[in-house]
Order: sequence, then structure tokens, then C-alpha cells
Amino acid sequence: MRTRKKKWAAGELAGNPRILRDENLLGRMREVFGNDNPIHLEVGCGKGRFITEMSRRHPEINFIALEREPTILAAAARRAEESGANSLVFMLADVDNLEEYFQLDNITRLYINFCDPWPRKKKWARRRLTHSNYLAKYEALRIPELFFKTDNRILFEFSLESFSRQKWLVQNVSLDLHRSGMEDNIMTEYEEKFSAHGPIYRLEAYPPFAHTI
Amino acid sequence: MRTRKKKWAAGELAGNPRILRDENLLGRMREVFGNDNPIHLEVGCGKGRFITEMSRRHPEINFIALEREPTILAAAARRAEESGANSLVFMLADVDNLEEYFQLDNITRLYINFCDPWPRKKKWARRRLTHSNYLAKYEALRIPELFFKTDNRILFEFSLESFSRQKWLVQNVSLDLHRSGMEDNIMTEYEEKFSAHGPIYRLEAYPPFAHTI
Repeated sequence: MRTRKKKWAAGELAGNPRILRDENLLGRMREVFGNDNPIHLEVGCGKGRFITEMSRRHPEINFIALEREPTILAAAARRAEESGANSLVFMLADVDNLEEYFQLDNITRLYINFCDPWPRKKKWARRRLTHSNYLAKYEALRIPELFFKTDNRILFEFSLESFSRQKWLVQNVSLDLHRSGMEDNIMTEYEEKFSAHGPIYRLEAYPPFAHTI
Repeated sequence: MRTRKKKWAAGELAGNPRILRDENLLGRMREVFGNDNPIHLEVGCGKGRFITEMSRRHPEINFIALEREPTILAAAARRAEESGANSLVFMLADVDNLEEYFQLDNITRLYINFCDPWPRKKKWARRRLTHSNYLAKYEALRIPELFFKTDNRILFEFSLESFSRQKWLVQNVSLDLHRSGMEDNIMTEYEEKFSAHGPIYRLEAYPPFAHTI
């Protein structure tokens, strides 16, 4: 079963036209999408439910989804292919190498949905995607907007402090997204499964260069 | 019953030595406490459980508690008197007139516990004690620290955005204080009563002049 599953994924990874080879991506964004529309990036897209639905609803936006687990990426790319989503591509890639894939001002919005909270060990905090080191990375790439969701209370507390320390502007904070009346929320697979266990937290954050009040 | 209660409160307000007359307070802090210890201010102290216990635990701090409801203030002042709390005084006063009572740098910490969330009407938002107008007022008085607790989700969301917009540094955020392991939390009367209904939110905030990272 496990082998069959892997074989299927390998075929998908090799043959699905939506999966980009990352090594030649720098400076090729215009070529990839054939237009100059804004580009929204999701890191850790999982099985792609969120980004595929976003793409369906927003044909005026180009979407790129990163996932570092090959089998999961294959499932996401197949889902996107079946849905006929318009401007949506995938990369088998790690957020740690973001600057190898993208140039300054390439990305106009970053989505981080239910990333690994790295609990327990204090030294793991630096692996959290809202750690100040990562915020510096996003800022260096001049990504002007970050939209963040999690069900992990401690990660959200940590993130609020991290954004504040790095002088990011935080707006549209929700401490219980599903009771907040946000109408256009698209649930990830994880979100649907785990939202019964507690609140979903969400915020929008803007790095210093992007807000000038 | 109601009249008897009022009579009792009137006596307390007239006779309790801890209740300051606000009109002569400017520049008299040294005289009031007889020392130069830091001054922590609570606005809206209710029946005074929090501030009385704080005073008992921290004899090295001077405490001032504001309350605008005379009967409630009377109860708080009597509680403090009975407890023998050391450096704790009260004022029948409104936060709106803060600059009439205090000079620059008088207050070294501000406590806001379970203030009125002013729900429903949008135009009421400006009455919330974490509205940007109030933050500007605290900042103008050069209050370097603000410690804030509430059980109201919408007020806490609003406050996070307000602090961010005004460039206050937000630290030690807790989205469920009673499950966060904070050991020296002192519960207000309200907090004890309502914490069963949902999480208590808490944060510490520092205005721009007080943090220089």
C-alpha cells in the first residue's frame, strides 16, 4: 500500500505540469504565469485545499504553493489539476531557501496556515515560521503582506510578540475565527478537522516598509 | 436597604483616610506616600481586591486606584483599610481626567483590568480604554508600562490592533491566562466570577518612548 502510494506520487511529481522545477525560477515569474498579476505564496500548502479554492475564487491573482513533503505535494498538485484552477503552480521546496526561488518584490502576499508550532523545547522556537529570523527573511524579500492562521495558542502568542518586536503592523486579529463572522474564510483540511477542539486564531501583518503611518 | 447602603458609603467616602481629594494632587505624590517609590496606578479598580492584594505583596511600590462609582470606591477603600495594606490610596476619579491628577513621569505602571468593552455600537469604540486616543493620553503622561487583562475577546482583538497601530511593544501575551501557568496572577472579583465562561486574555504593553529596540 505504502509502495503503491509512493509510486503514484512519483508519477505525479514527474508528470504534473503545475509542479515547477525550482532551480530555474529566479527571474522567470512573468514567464511562468504569462502575466504580471500579483503573486500570492503559500508556504506549507499541505494537500492544497486552501490554495486551490483561493485560485478558483481569484483568477486575477497568481498563486504559488510550497510544500516539502513530496507525497503531499503530489496530492495537492493533482487536486489543482482536477479542479482546473487557473494560475496556480507548486514547488517541492523549503521555506528556508525562499531567497533562492524569489527575487525582491516578486511576492505580494504570503500565506502561512497551520504551520508546525514546534512546541516543548525552547530552542525549537527559531524553527517557527513567525520567528524573528523568518520575519527578517520575508522582509528582505520585500513581501508586503503576511496572512497567518493557526489553532495553536502558544504559537499565536509567540507570533504576536514576534511581530510586535519586529515592528510589523498587526491588523484584523481574530481570536476565534469561526465565531468572528469572517465570511470569505477558506478552511484548510487541518482547520476543518481540528477547529472543533478550540478556537482558530488569525491575523494580517505588514512589515515596516509596507506601512507608513 | 439601598438608602442604608448609600449612607454607609457616604460615611466611608468622607472618613476613610485612604481616599484622596483629587483637586490638590498635582505635584504632591512625594507628600502623599512619604517616599519616592515607583507608583502603580489602576484605573477602574472595582471593589479593590486586585490592588489591595498587589499592595500587600509589594510594599516597595506605591499604589493608586481610580474608581468613578462612589459606592464601589467606598467598598474598595474599606477593604484596603481592613487589610492594613501599606502604600495604597484611592481616588473618586475618571480616567478621562488623568492629566489633571498626574504629572509627567508620575506613574510607572498602569493596570487596566476588565474595563468596559463597549460592545455593539461602532462609535462607542473610542470609549474603550485601549483606544488610540487613550493610548496617546497615557503616552503623553509618559507612563512606561501598561498591564491589561480582559475576558472580552472582541475588546482584546481591538486592543492588539490598537497597540500595534500606535507602535506600542506588546509582550507576555496570554490568550488563556488561567491555563498559561502564570503563577503570580491576582484575580479580580470579576475575573474569578467570569473565568468559567471562557479564557482570560492578558498582555503587557510599552509605548514607543519606553522601548528602544
